Amino acid sequence: MKELREAILREGQGIGKDVVKVDSFLNHRIDVGLAVRMGQAFYQAFREDEVDCILTVEASGIVPAVTTAQAFGNIPVVFAKKGDHTNVGPDVYTARVYSFTHQRTNVIRVSKRHLLRGARVLIVDDFLANGEAIEGLLDILRQAECIAVGAGVCVEKGFQSGGRRLRERGLKVVSLAIVAGVEDGRIILDHQ
Amino acid sequence: MKELREAILREGQGIGKDVVKVDSFLNHRIDVGLAVRMGQAFYQAFREDEVDCILTVEASGIVPAVTTAQAFGNIPVVFAKKGDHTNVGPDVYTARVYSFTHQRTNVIRVSKRHLLRGARVLIVDDFLANGEAIEGLLDILRQAECIAVGAGVCVEKGFQSGGRRLRERGLKVVSLAIVAGVEDGRIILDHQ
Repeated sequence: MKELREAILREGQGIGKDVVKVDSFLNHRIDVGLAVRMGQAFYQAFREDEVDCILTVEASGIVPAVTTAQAFGNIPVVFAKKGDHTNVGPDVYTARVYSFTHQRTNVIRVSKRHLLRGARVLIVDDFLANGEAIEGLLDILRQAECIAVGAGVCVEKGFQSGGRRLRERGLKVVSLAIVAGVEDGRIILDHQ
Repeated sequence: MKELREAILREGQGIGKDVVKVDSFLNHRIDVGLAVRMGQAFYQAFREDEVDCILTVEASGIVPAVTTAQAFGNIPVVFAKKGDHTNVGPDVYTARVYSFTHQRTNVIRVSKRHLLRGARVLIVDDFLANGEAIEGLLDILRQAECIAVGAGVCVEKGFQSGGRRLRERGLKVVSLAIVAGVEDGRIILDHQ
């Protein structure tokens, strides 16, 4: 997606060999117009897939999840919660997700009553690196006997293995921008 | 807001004396159409206040924050992060927020570069109970020398003191539904 690629090149910061910092428009300050258009892009990519609802994980995945749901005509969003939420209740699906960014394992959970068996679910997230978050969401969808129609990702780190592994397994993964690497503080994008 | 009040009465669960569980449409599964219309309601309430950007705190505040920003013509959203985020960096405003729901103190933080001095900022959140989250956001706005034009809240617990205390201090607080109390598992709404 041209607008997202331009925003990454203009405002993104590369740190070290693998950190892609896009907090000025994607996951701390939000460029809401861009978020709306990313939702429309995911709709274009998955419009034939009969999507019933969107699944993401808190926190920054919520933004593209909501704008994608709007593009689909205001279908529901479910976001998995991290950690021990007293408000979620005991009747939950859980999965363990290791976060490389925060270097810790989170338990993510979704109330069973929010995922109906047989529902066709599109996963949306802001980042795909090692794929741990999406693997955890897929695990929850398997437990719920839902159908994962695919994953829409704003920024994929193409130099990490998550996207390749998910696609090899047959999942339809659509990334709006793919980062090839980080060099001297600059973010290098894949030619797409 | 009639649609939100009806959703609370139809789908909300009261637990104990003070827990208002609305996770089927507001903060776990999201009714996206309702979220859009809540954003429009906040726009109607604050449209004369020359709002430059929306401030909220992760995670469930992000939904009404984004839809409100859309109603204002896609102004930016900034969401405060909880805990130690390695991605936020050191140059941050922080505030301590006690969460009664989770019974712990969180440090919330916002990168300094995302709050420009003099900006007119509308706080949006899904819940207002004891007001700790909004107090923390106001603290951050003071540090950033921004102008807090008010707070838009989806559900206020009118039987807790946060709303009264914020209004006494002169803050414009607009709540779309006010819960008067919880009785025998039922949620009682204020007459509004």
